[in-house]
Amino acid sequence: VSSIRTAAVIGLGLIGGSLARDLAALGVRVLAADRDDESVDAAVGEGIVERRLGAGFSGVETAEAVVIAVPVDQAPPLVERIAPLCRNARLVIDTGSTKRSIVAAASATEVAHCFVGAHPYAGDHRSGWSASRRGLFTGARVFLVQASATEEALAAAHDLWRAVGALPETISAEDHDELLARTSHLPHVASSALALVLSAAGVSRRDLGSGGEAMIRLAAASPAMWTAICADNRVAIRDAVVSLRAQLDRVAGALDRGDMADLEAFFEEGRGWSSQAERSGRDS
Amino acid sequence: VSSIRTAAVIGLGLIGGSLARDLAALGVRVLAADRDDESVDAAVGEGIVERRLGAGFSGVETAEAVVIAVPVDQAPPLVERIAPLCRNARLVIDTGSTKRSIVAAASATEVAHCFVGAHPYAGDHRSGWSASRRGLFTGARVFLVQASATEEALAAAHDLWRAVGALPETISAEDHDELLARTSHLPHVASSALALVLSAAGVSRRDLGSGGEAMIRLAAASPAMWTAICADNRVAIRDAVVSLRAQLDRVAGALDRGDMADLEAFFEEGRGWSSQAERSGRDS
Repeated sequence: VSSIRTAAVIGLGLIGGSLARDLAALGVRVLAADRDDESVDAAVGEGIVERRLGAGFSGVETAEAVVIAVPVDQAPPLVERIAPLCRNARLVIDTGSTKRSIVAAASATEVAHCFVGAHPYAGDHRSGWSASRRGLFTGARVFLVQASATEEALAAAHDLWRAVGALPETISAEDHDELLARTSHLPHVASSALALVLSAAGVSRRDLGSGGEAMIRLAAASPAMWTAICADNRVAIRDAVVSLRAQLDRVAGALDRGDMADLEAFFEEGRGWSSQAERSGRDS
Repeated sequence: VSSIRTAAVIGLGLIGGSLARDLAALGVRVLAADRDDESVDAAVGEGIVERRLGAGFSGVETAEAVVIAVPVDQAPPLVERIAPLCRNARLVIDTGSTKRSIVAAASATEVAHCFVGAHPYAGDHRSGWSASRRGLFTGARVFLVQASATEEALAAAHDLWRAVGALPETISAEDHDELLARTSHLPHVASSALALVLSAAGVSRRDLGSGGEAMIRLAAASPAMWTAICADNRVAIRDAVVSLRAQLDRVAGALDRGDMADLEAFFEEGRGWSSQAERSGRDS
């Protein structure tokens, strides 16, 4: 990555760990910290991380790029804490699934000029260093929020993500959080809700077909991480949940009335959106 | 397939077409009918189907096995119509996603003694002859409902499904429809409901991540087929939809109150069920 010789990655989970692997493969010297000592030991043992950050994040002052890859509720206090230390940083990014809070927090610190909010659209229900892997970001979209960052910092963020194979695009923090409430946060809530219905009915997971199995996979994601996301994007997620509930009301009503024409219209509209969206996806 | 030389397959969609392919590969002579002439032409052209059934299903009287692979609303009238013709049949099966109606209809006909309700847990959102393929049933569970069939007919049904690589297991029609309301029918409804939320919010399908994409894939399934399934299993599906709505109520309430402890409990319970079920799945 042009002009980044040393990167500090704080949080070696699925996202931070995978980014550390890709950066190390590009010849970047990676320093790291994680609440879980064993993850850092493993990363050092595998030769991905050169050295653990010291107490109070000492060593972070040597990094040209700092990556904050911790749950979204921990990212704002963390950026406030490390900002005064990032004396050599040309770029500080986070990787969380919500952007408003972290961008607001970072913009009030010493790294405001070089903080770019980032959200790689990668990963799945797995988490932790053991789930991290090379190439996780290949072909993945990455949302970038410029906020108070300079054009140089934004360009550096583009460079970093392109170097690991991702497709960066800029968006405002507000638009990001509204969009993701529907495209990502609501599907996670729906998957967990479905799992609880099956649990309450005494159904075993092995009784699911491939379609049902795909629908409950997200329910295996980290509860703490998703609670933090919901807390941070509460209003937009609540609106999305209420919209989904209204669609289920429509179905329950149609079934009550025996209104199969309305039910067929419901399925037709859902399919229409899927296939139109697929077409426009191919065109773009 | 032991002692089945000729099979008649009515409906050359994903399920009927795939079964026709597997039976032909086993050396069974396959006769077929479909509302769509081109599907039968294609199947004959590919050498899968030897001959089209004639007007009024003439030719079906030569078949030792008859497969009814049409949408669940069309299966009961079809079995009533062809039952008097199935003079040589040792086994008549359907392949639909609901079992009560078809089993009740068949049990009142001339084929009651040899009709076994069948539901292969295979396939996806695709449909039609063009989606059919060899080996679709390899490793798939197949639910079998004995109803009024003799032990010989039930054994023949086990044989036929094992011959195409499936794992048959018996269940009552009532238990089947209750179970599938939650494991299959509800996930389809939830996927379509999610698609409609995204559609209403102006979201494009390409804005989905891999998790969201998995959650809306089922919404592409055939509206007519799924309306028929919902009509046939209306009460159980309505109950399941109401249960899912109640889970969404819980989430919306927790978000309204800012009760993140309850939200985390919600995600924990969902994950607990997923991982417990996975463990018991591996043990079994």
